[in-house]
Amino acid sequence: MDDPASNASGATGSGPIPKAVASRLSLYLRELQHLIEQGEETTSSSELGRKLGFTDAQVRKDLAYFGHFGYPGIGYRCDKLVGAIKKILGTDQQWHAVLVGAGNLGRALLGYKGFQRQGFRVVAAFDTDASKVGSQIEGVAVVHLDQLTEFAKANRVRLGIIAVPAPAAQAVANRLVAAGVEGILNFAPVTIELPDTVRQVGVDLAIELEQLSFAIVTRGEPPTG
Amino acid sequence: MDDPASNASGATGSGPIPKAVASRLSLYLRELQHLIEQGEETTSSSELGRKLGFTDAQVRKDLAYFGHFGYPGIGYRCDKLVGAIKKILGTDQQWHAVLVGAGNLGRALLGYKGFQRQGFRVVAAFDTDASKVGSQIEGVAVVHLDQLTEFAKANRVRLGIIAVPAPAAQAVANRLVAAGVEGILNFAPVTIELPDTVRQVGVDLAIELEQLSFAIVTRGEPPTG
Repeated sequence: MDDPASNASGATGSGPIPKAVASRLSLYLRELQHLIEQGEETTSSSELGRKLGFTDAQVRKDLAYFGHFGYPGIGYRCDKLVGAIKKILGTDQQWHAVLVGAGNLGRALLGYKGFQRQGFRVVAAFDTDASKVGSQIEGVAVVHLDQLTEFAKANRVRLGIIAVPAPAAQAVANRLVAAGVEGILNFAPVTIELPDTVRQVGVDLAIELEQLSFAIVTRGEPPTG
Repeated sequence: MDDPASNASGATGSGPIPKAVASRLSLYLRELQHLIEQGEETTSSSELGRKLGFTDAQVRKDLAYFGHFGYPGIGYRCDKLVGAIKKILGTDQQWHAVLVGAGNLGRALLGYKGFQRQGFRVVAAFDTDASKVGSQIEGVAVVHLDQLTEFAKANRVRLGIIAVPAPAAQAVANRLVAAGVEGILNFAPVTIELPDTVRQVGVDLAIELEQLSFAIVTRGEPPTG
């Protein structure tokens, strides 16, 4: 495996890419993948902007962070832009992830096709419920949580997904850290504390609904993402 | 029911609240609710900032958008701040939502406690699968999609949640629009087109993982939210 730090080398623009730009890169990536599926080979900043609700200038500025991929009269080549964005996001490599919590949410996540498509492979699910351990969900084995560390080290696991109820989340996070994961995606609606060396993204599904109600009551532009 | 536009009146600062601030308000709200559960009556910009990874100045600036709730030597009263943020986000009222798609993801969402806690009540689930219609999931009735419009109008439904596979998402969105919803939360990994009058928030779970891999490969600060 390459040194992961080398994946950031796609950034040829001025300095590091801000977080807000990185989150828009995911949106551009998804739209470009969609265009490619439809047989489109090229696109333009105005097309991408229109589909995502951004101005042309915003799209051009974002893409300029990592060099110029637009051609006069042609626009952007979808495949080249996909490759460049994936390199920046780190998804030009495959990531092994484990999921903890094989309840309804865990099952839904194991069945979610979008992870694999974007380069994330959930290699095992972990639970403590004896009735679930030893079963398979969506082709993924459910393993007892006590085997997490051993499994993670043997299977080059770098990411952990927490899909347990809020009261159990911190204890699960501690076990994932002990197992050596580098990042945690947390679906439990609670803030977890992690060492500085481990990255965290929290997914609070009610936040998305709050942003929707905010957009309605203010009758402003909808938030993206 | 109040005129929904009146809910934006919590904004006493200078002009409309930017979307980026609104998304941070959700994070402050969740942290404040957590503090209240722990019995805390007051907090400070530095405590909120530390827990969420923002600077003090950022927190103070965000909260200043809707007036000054901090007291010298005391900080912020958690309950007052919760009330003010909810008013801005529109969640000082209860919202009725319907969910379309009673598969694994739909089941997980129906079991998700966070929606109800934040003021969102899923009043029915819709599907076309005869084996599901007529059943109850997590206490919510599964109704045939053909009854969506009638049901939505009779039950003051304002929000729709799409939890169907990507190829079905646009058709479901069209039906939700016809049924009169004002906003759609879309879990299908595809862009849907809506009239300008209907707000949309897309939830692409792979985007969260991409932001996590980006944070790891760049070894930068983790994205929040």
